[in-house]
Amino acid sequence: MRPAALGRASRYSQGRVFGISHPDRFRRCFSHEISQETCSSVAKLLQWKPTPDHVADNPPQVVINGFVRSVRSMKSIRFVALGDGSSLAPLQAIVDTKHAEGLTVGAAVRLSGAWVSSPGASQSHELHVSKVEVLGPSDAKTFPIQKKYQTPEFLRTLPHLRPRTPLNAALLRFRSDAIASLTQFFASRTFTQTHPPIITSSDCEGAGEVFTVTPATETADQANTDAKKDDSFFRSKKYLTVSGQLHLEALSQSVGNVWTLSPAFRAERSDTSRHLSEFYMLEAEMSFVDNLGAVMDLTEDMLRFLAKSLYETAAVKELLSRSSQSGSDLAPLDEVRRRWEGLMDPSWPRITYTEALGLLQKNAEMFTEKPTWGMNLQSEHEKFIAMSVGGGQKPVFVTDYPRDIKAFYMRPNQPTAEQPNATVECFDLLVPEVCEIAGGSMREHRLEPLQDAMKRHGILKPAMDVNGNVIPDADGNGPTSNLDWYVDLRRWGCPPHGGFGLGFDRLLCYLSGVQTIRDIVAFPRWVGRCDC
Amino acid sequence: MRPAALGRASRYSQGRVFGISHPDRFRRCFSHEISQETCSSVAKLLQWKPTPDHVADNPPQVVINGFVRSVRSMKSIRFVALGDGSSLAPLQAIVDTKHAEGLTVGAAVRLSGAWVSSPGASQSHELHVSKVEVLGPSDAKTFPIQKKYQTPEFLRTLPHLRPRTPLNAALLRFRSDAIASLTQFFASRTFTQTHPPIITSSDCEGAGEVFTVTPATETADQANTDAKKDDSFFRSKKYLTVSGQLHLEALSQSVGNVWTLSPAFRAERSDTSRHLSEFYMLEAEMSFVDNLGAVMDLTEDMLRFLAKSLYETAAVKELLSRSSQSGSDLAPLDEVRRRWEGLMDPSWPRITYTEALGLLQKNAEMFTEKPTWGMNLQSEHEKFIAMSVGGGQKPVFVTDYPRDIKAFYMRPNQPTAEQPNATVECFDLLVPEVCEIAGGSMREHRLEPLQDAMKRHGILKPAMDVNGNVIPDADGNGPTSNLDWYVDLRRWGCPPHGGFGLGFDRLLCYLSGVQTIRDIVAFPRWVGRCDC
Repeated sequence: MRPAALGRASRYSQGRVFGISHPDRFRRCFSHEISQETCSSVAKLLQWKPTPDHVADNPPQVVINGFVRSVRSMKSIRFVALGDGSSLAPLQAIVDTKHAEGLTVGAAVRLSGAWVSSPGASQSHELHVSKVEVLGPSDAKTFPIQKKYQTPEFLRTLPHLRPRTPLNAALLRFRSDAIASLTQFFASRTFTQTHPPIITSSDCEGAGEVFTVTPATETADQANTDAKKDDSFFRSKKYLTVSGQLHLEALSQSVGNVWTLSPAFRAERSDTSRHLSEFYMLEAEMSFVDNLGAVMDLTEDMLRFLAKSLYETAAVKELLSRSSQSGSDLAPLDEVRRRWEGLMDPSWPRITYTEALGLLQKNAEMFTEKPTWGMNLQSEHEKFIAMSVGGGQKPVFVTDYPRDIKAFYMRPNQPTAEQPNATVECFDLLVPEVCEIAGGSMREHRLEPLQDAMKRHGILKPAMDVNGNVIPDADGNGPTSNLDWYVDLRRWGCPPHGGFGLGFDRLLCYLSGVQTIRDIVAFPRWVGRCDC
Repeated sequence: MRPAALGRASRYSQGRVFGISHPDRFRRCFSHEISQETCSSVAKLLQWKPTPDHVADNPPQVVINGFVRSVRSMKSIRFVALGDGSSLAPLQAIVDTKHAEGLTVGAAVRLSGAWVSSPGASQSHELHVSKVEVLGPSDAKTFPIQKKYQTPEFLRTLPHLRPRTPLNAALLRFRSDAIASLTQFFASRTFTQTHPPIITSSDCEGAGEVFTVTPATETADQANTDAKKDDSFFRSKKYLTVSGQLHLEALSQSVGNVWTLSPAFRAERSDTSRHLSEFYMLEAEMSFVDNLGAVMDLTEDMLRFLAKSLYETAAVKELLSRSSQSGSDLAPLDEVRRRWEGLMDPSWPRITYTEALGLLQKNAEMFTEKPTWGMNLQSEHEKFIAMSVGGGQKPVFVTDYPRDIKAFYMRPNQPTAEQPNATVECFDLLVPEVCEIAGGSMREHRLEPLQDAMKRHGILKPAMDVNGNVIPDADGNGPTSNLDWYVDLRRWGCPPHGGFGLGFDRLLCYLSGVQTIRDIVAFPRWVGRCDC
């Protein structure tokens, strides 16, 4: 018996493949010798423009999969617009009425036919269909996604169907290209890509805007009872992470420079175009770095690389073309172009918070809220900085904010004669219209100053079980803080280090021209909304 | 006033950089002209072997950052082993005792000196240190990570410090390389990388092994009260995703072939070496694919690409070298090598469940549990298949399992004369020792058969609010199922499609030789354990 032979003889060995799984086949699509091969995508087929000379007697035969976007009926033929998410532009297919059964809006079909020059002005070539296979029928009367204009608000009620609109397909491809570009950027700098945990012990400085995590089988009552027996699932309260930074710091003490693109969560009850309860954070941490300038250089280099590598991609070209259409829900083309050009600009201004305050105060009459040193910059202030310092195009780094309005882990500056107030080595990166798009800092890497800062911020608190009872530490020596482990990182060999965090979905909004973060994320979650 | 000029004059513009942020500097490290430039990593410096001819009078001066792994004291000098996570091997530094203050185990230091041939057998070159900067001191007496052997169980109690061991640094680099390789593979096949949601409405077929998500500010009481007012955070119970598959199916109806590497969660109370409560799933979904063979081809091609692209990387070579050491906690070298060679093998056997049952029944005396058609394969059975069909090396696809032991969404096979029993178009991918490493299927893409299957599996259930009350649908026409949206995908143009899911951490275990999944994840979470 040679059991391995069983496998080779299996029914799958010679399996015919509908789609395209081998790069070879992408090429074959354009080879005249092999006709009737399924073409990999509408986008690729639209690029193929065989001249009439090539095809005079023998037009190339192709097979293409896709969804019917619209059907226009003439006397004996139908004009079918076919899309498959690979391009905004549809493919025009001409189908004899006798083959058109089941060619309804939304249907998933496979069309075979000749790829020939089109007399129409809208396309160079069109498909003269000889065979129609309806792979997934659609009841067009009830299909909620229609070719006519549909508001973003309406589409948002259908997150499972919304990706099928050509614009949303382009946004999905844009996101994918952006992830690949970032992966390439960080690999070229030998940053290690990591997966910090999602379920964590830290409740984010007790701010309360976190989600807790409990097994579904543990009702509140059970959890209480079990907790008394020290038998709840994780033995103490656990939360969804609000940022991977603290864990990244631990990992950067292992492999040096690290980054991640991973989900983060906030249980904010705010109902704005800029916040979601679930979002992707792009975070990086640099080790053995003693100057905030290096962290800003990294942020700037990364965003510039991303912009340059994506600007000429099909998805971005399509999004820009959509921006230019009247009645588009995207930001106007000029504005979106300026955003890209700003990111590609070779030098971005850097000013301190104190310098920024000076500028604001010289123009105090422009603002509803009077600019005062020590305050958080309001949206109106950030907009002014972005316009006056960045010229409404370049991103602007604002650095060295007052200590008391920033996070406990940021490293303080030495007070000087010019700047006697307590500030920290941090930056916000401001861009026009959207304002803060990224933030970073040097981290306090010294043990005692960190502990002092935590006390000042009221963070050195005991760990508590699900009933709110203090958990004694292993030695029974008193309360254990949820962040003891973070303090530990400073106990044994903590080099100077710093990093940044950037809201990935917000960045994609900014560069695509999408006006709200709810429309850049396929399945957005915010207060009151978590469909599917 | 030209405010932009402010930025250029800022204190950060000329910032001195400790670490290396520009690729240029990587090169400069090896340029003789520019001495005293910080070298990018211990790994790079160890590769640099200037010959004595080059350096006779003027040995190259370098600066290197890292952590002290060990110190050996001689009369007037110290031998310091320096590591920075970039290599298993440390760098040997020789420091005059008068400069050695603060050079304690664990300390983060910056060493400057001459890079010269070493008389020792363990290294070709060593650093003769002229300057020591202690950037982060370490109290060596209390530092829990010691150079001597420490058990995996002990290290697991210190997840925030464990990454600092050379082995764990290599595992982090291995994970990073694997992510980059997968990104490259899928980009080359024009698969779109996506981010399916983490918080979902589906409780995974009601199996109960899910985590629920609630805002920390919502106590159970409040949640109950608020829910009655339809005012709980998400208005109904929400869960952490157990798999992105259902959402990937929606996205594949937009852009065709899609994939994701994202977190998934199970609230299993099992305490094994193969399960975590939080883990990364690699999932892909192919659209317009009508044959399970294509899904297996993709799985196989991906794993083969991954293995080939990683096998010669530094991290993998280091892990293999560690496997070969006696007393290592990793699987033996021969075994790990066989795993890599199996994945790189150009053809993997494929057999049906029914064929597998035949093999098992011929050897029934070998098993504790008698092999019977319709049963789930037990670990002993899977091991036998992996050994007898895959020769203990090649991965083996087992296909077409009985319908009743598989998920509701799998597409049924047509019963035939030889196979009259109800089976579904699915596969498990078995590898020696670890058994199932991936699973995939064709999805039921037809509306009514899917609804029938959901009824049969008891899944078509009404949506419930946090109090367990049924939520009427928008029309008031009766209960809304949590999976109505998934059924909707079949209503309008659902092409044949299929995909697979693979436990990413488990795969990394398999290929690294790490014996438990708790040691491949930096911050592992399982029942009773969620540190940091």
